[in-house]
Amino acid sequence: MSNKKNLVHLGPNGSYTQIAAEHIAKDSLYKDVKFVTNNSIINVINVVDSNDDYIAVVPIENSIEGIVRETIDNLIKVKSELYITKEVVIPISHCLISKNKNISAITKITSMPQALAQCQNYIAENLPDVEEQIPTTSTSYAVQQLETLPVCYAAIASVKAAEIYNLNILAKNINDEHDNKTRFICLDRVITESTGNDKTSVAFSTVNEAGSLVEVLNCFRLNGINLSYIESRPSKKVFGEYIFFIDFDGHINDENVKRTLSQIKPHVRIYKFLGSYPKFKMG
Amino acid sequence: MSNKKNLVHLGPNGSYTQIAAEHIAKDSLYKDVKFVTNNSIINVINVVDSNDDYIAVVPIENSIEGIVRETIDNLIKVKSELYITKEVVIPISHCLISKNKNISAITKITSMPQALAQCQNYIAENLPDVEEQIPTTSTSYAVQQLETLPVCYAAIASVKAAEIYNLNILAKNINDEHDNKTRFICLDRVITESTGNDKTSVAFSTVNEAGSLVEVLNCFRLNGINLSYIESRPSKKVFGEYIFFIDFDGHINDENVKRTLSQIKPHVRIYKFLGSYPKFKMG
Repeated sequence: MSNKKNLVHLGPNGSYTQIAAEHIAKDSLYKDVKFVTNNSIINVINVVDSNDDYIAVVPIENSIEGIVRETIDNLIKVKSELYITKEVVIPISHCLISKNKNISAITKITSMPQALAQCQNYIAENLPDVEEQIPTTSTSYAVQQLETLPVCYAAIASVKAAEIYNLNILAKNINDEHDNKTRFICLDRVITESTGNDKTSVAFSTVNEAGSLVEVLNCFRLNGINLSYIESRPSKKVFGEYIFFIDFDGHINDENVKRTLSQIKPHVRIYKFLGSYPKFKMG
Repeated sequence: MSNKKNLVHLGPNGSYTQIAAEHIAKDSLYKDVKFVTNNSIINVINVVDSNDDYIAVVPIENSIEGIVRETIDNLIKVKSELYITKEVVIPISHCLISKNKNISAITKITSMPQALAQCQNYIAENLPDVEEQIPTTSTSYAVQQLETLPVCYAAIASVKAAEIYNLNILAKNINDEHDNKTRFICLDRVITESTGNDKTSVAFSTVNEAGSLVEVLNCFRLNGINLSYIESRPSKKVFGEYIFFIDFDGHINDENVKRTLSQIKPHVRIYKFLGSYPKFKMG
């Protein structure tokens, strides 16, 4: 049971994270939460880490860009008993948004670096007069800023952001790879109960670096547990020292998961259980 | 034997990649190369991919930020027979550089996003009046631009960049993590001969995603081959489909390496040999 009052997410209103947060807040567990925005992922994680009455929604992985480093690197540092309680996958469909109605008058484009990166072919082919691309901290912040900027500016963001700030959509679905999705996670101070179709996330460093990773992965294989994701991040302390993040099928309360996690202990140095939660089903 | 005429690297002059390139050009193989700069990693890789008389030097991994995505994602796409022929690890020590001699007059800071990210604690503690941080395509480009910008601007880059553009160093070694290193690789159309202390890099996707990764890694273990690095990147085609990049001890011509690489074939779908080259020794 959760009785959290606030859900903090990357803002301002109209961000893709807000779309994910609205999806998560449909859960009866979170139905009365008040939405609060913050201007960076690190701040969102700090708010939930230091306030018992908050939950947070943050992006974890994009199908084009890969892991969201700001999320994963800060998740490993949280001090409170925070766990991943839910995941949701949202399709990313970028629009070109402006005060202007005339696409040929656009000479400056602003958005998050990731969103700009995802539309480079579109910009090269359709906006030959663009002289400058200005990075912002979120897609929705780029749209919010348009109000005070000259009419030669356009932003790249969601349909929702255009609607909230009452601006023109000059083009839809402009991302170069149309199958673009982002996975978001919810952070809370509970461990979600088993549903029978769950996944579990853990982080660890090995006692003998990448070489003993295979010892750890073998523990999963020998217990018949399927891995769905593996990612390495530098420990930031010693060059060549990594923290691995893995997702696998099953719940922390399953017998074979308990057995596996005790078997990996001799091979790991840092170890952190990140959460067990239902697998997201698209559509 | 190489008789390449040009070495292309991220520029302009004074970039950390140029420092790495100078190190690589000390090798007798490359001693007469002419240095050529380009403004992005993707362009550097495109130049070497489409010109037989070029070699390239690109960053591959930083001890704080991790893999350089622009390098790895483009390396997998090269069409010519390009291999990694050398690696070099360079310590990263950022300076605050300006036309100004007065640090308290600085209100705007410009550099590559990675360099800005690596100095956030320093900026918060020492430059409370900074209102804006402007990202650029390279650290040395940020310094080069200072000439035409107001004196309230400072750039974050190497000592070498300050010297080349004849500007003031307001502070040295300002990166938050002092043990900050970047590994660079050289790309050429030859396979480096075995030295007895080599590493090999390969990229692959597995036939059954992350689950069969352990099958591949076991082939290395059963042949007594030590892995020094593993990284996953999204395939950008299907969500949850990854390309793995691994580095391991040994040379492509070693019998146990040949045996291992033939044993992994049933478990991999995409497979690309990236190169065998001497391990870099610091100091």
